Amino acid sequence: MSSKLDIVARILSGRGTKPGEAGRAFAPANIALVKYWGKRDEELNLPVTSSLSVSLGALGSEVTIRRGHGADTVILNGETLPADSSFARRVSAYLDLFRQDSSMVFHLDARNTIPTAAGFASSASGFAALVRSLDQLFGWDLDARELSILARLGSGSACRSLFHGFVEWHAGEAEDGMDSYAKPLAETWPDLRMGLVVISSEEKAISSRAGMKRTVETSPLYTAWPSKVAEDLPEVRAALRERDFHRLGRTAESNALAMHATMIAAWPPVIYWKPESLAAMKRVAALREQGLAVYFTMDAGPNLKLLFERKDEGAVAAEFPALAVVAPFGEGRHAIDS
Amino acid sequence: MSSKLDIVARILSGRGTKPGEAGRAFAPANIALVKYWGKRDEELNLPVTSSLSVSLGALGSEVTIRRGHGADTVILNGETLPADSSFARRVSAYLDLFRQDSSMVFHLDARNTIPTAAGFASSASGFAALVRSLDQLFGWDLDARELSILARLGSGSACRSLFHGFVEWHAGEAEDGMDSYAKPLAETWPDLRMGLVVISSEEKAISSRAGMKRTVETSPLYTAWPSKVAEDLPEVRAALRERDFHRLGRTAESNALAMHATMIAAWPPVIYWKPESLAAMKRVAALREQGLAVYFTMDAGPNLKLLFERKDEGAVAAEFPALAVVAPFGEGRHAIDS
Repeated sequence: MSSKLDIVARILSGRGTKPGEAGRAFAPANIALVKYWGKRDEELNLPVTSSLSVSLGALGSEVTIRRGHGADTVILNGETLPADSSFARRVSAYLDLFRQDSSMVFHLDARNTIPTAAGFASSASGFAALVRSLDQLFGWDLDARELSILARLGSGSACRSLFHGFVEWHAGEAEDGMDSYAKPLAETWPDLRMGLVVISSEEKAISSRAGMKRTVETSPLYTAWPSKVAEDLPEVRAALRERDFHRLGRTAESNALAMHATMIAAWPPVIYWKPESLAAMKRVAALREQGLAVYFTMDAGPNLKLLFERKDEGAVAAEFPALAVVAPFGEGRHAIDS
Repeated sequence: MSSKLDIVARILSGRGTKPGEAGRAFAPANIALVKYWGKRDEELNLPVTSSLSVSLGALGSEVTIRRGHGADTVILNGETLPADSSFARRVSAYLDLFRQDSSMVFHLDARNTIPTAAGFASSASGFAALVRSLDQLFGWDLDARELSILARLGSGSACRSLFHGFVEWHAGEAEDGMDSYAKPLAETWPDLRMGLVVISSEEKAISSRAGMKRTVETSPLYTAWPSKVAEDLPEVRAALRERDFHRLGRTAESNALAMHATMIAAWPPVIYWKPESLAAMKRVAALREQGLAVYFTMDAGPNLKLLFERKDEGAVAAEFPALAVVAPFGEGRHAIDS
């Protein structure tokens, strides 16, 4: 079995090891339309299935990294994190993979261009930006596949945040995960919109990582998940090719519901929904019955991400007044509204 | 393929056919601890899996049946139902199975000893009582297995309402369903209590029958349901044998959640939960974390049925003020409280 260090050594073999002045990079957040849910390898973040996401354009993380002194410092949105905070420890553990000796420490400054409270996962864009900034700092000049693999070692879905637009993470089959990385798709969809309905920005009682693990280990319905993904991936690819919005929305919503269903059947149950989540889900279904082309997806949390097209933005926003609208392909209003 | 009429003819062959004065019988409502969810035969109500329920003692349906004149009349709780109401039509269609000629009509008076609005299914107890009353009226003198099969033809779960206490419906394998009927278990549990939390008594937007069918046909997770039931049945049997309340509660709650999970993954999704259902579910989980031995089960609707023991009735009722408490084995307070 390979360890993270083995993989890093293999990828960096023959590459630069002398850090330069600094590295700085941006990576977008991403929302999966076909979810990543379940690992076949906990250490290497190897997924049970492939997944497919859309990146959020200018919304993501910017990371600057320099050599530091004494101990790692991690600044997030202008605030220095305590060294024993869970995020700082996670970053330091990841940086351990790249130190040439124990005296090599880093100074990392991360800034999210997406409100942290908005409930979009920032670990994906954060680790993707970190990998790109390390590539610059050390002058590795890695290719997209290698960067994606390194990002995956930090956070599974980070491998998708290396790219803009629609991105597919190929699960791969190799035990060392060298064939498990993301690739961008050719399709674009300038009129696609994603609207965030924030139900709660409290920290989750169960982390995504823990919820995923418990589901794989205890949910009797999880066995059916891989075939659901195998059905949904070609559906989404076809929907993108044909720009068929209903096909895209239906598949994404159904995939998210099936993911949550696998959790609900875990023991103890993993229920990220709050009563207000369910109310919002029912509102989306009711709007659709009234003829509005709107669907939702949900990650391991209580918030909804609505999918609709530019022409319906007004109608959707009228029903969800606090909606934050994102244009993944950057046309028109592409910053978060609220 | 057998039709309902074939089955009835086979069971009644050589039995009395001359109706007497009247038939009158009571049958209890029942709540499944391991659910019946999915048919392998829509006509004969043959289930995909076995199921296991507890009957609700004195709460159920009492049916009196007599020969009538002109057309069937169906009285429910003292009110004559319009002949074209869905319940009256369903009853008449069922009675068609037993008419010797088209001039044979019936006068049926059904009374539920359980508030109809309370959300307990009354079709199970109703059809079970109807079968018993027909047996009296015609003087068939059928055995329990035969009565259970006839009840199943009216409503699947009615085959379990023939009996008090814990009851297992054996799915059977025969195409004609002659091995698909319910049998009572020997175990009792005088201290077991069931508490009804009424979230809504509105009619469901999707009937159980339709929700079940859509789940079987469209939910990718339904394929895993039979093995979930195969795990849970021996767990519940063992819990009853050992009177292990936590084992019983955990298995029943997990089974109900898995059933709802299969629906949530159907398309369009079948979501019987209301926001208030989810809030009550979370309240039960929180109480359990505080040390109270309480679990829930849910059927194809928004209401919760809490499971607890007699000693905890005060504590549970304090948290759910409108709780209606049932003692399935009739000890102590066994009528519905509200």
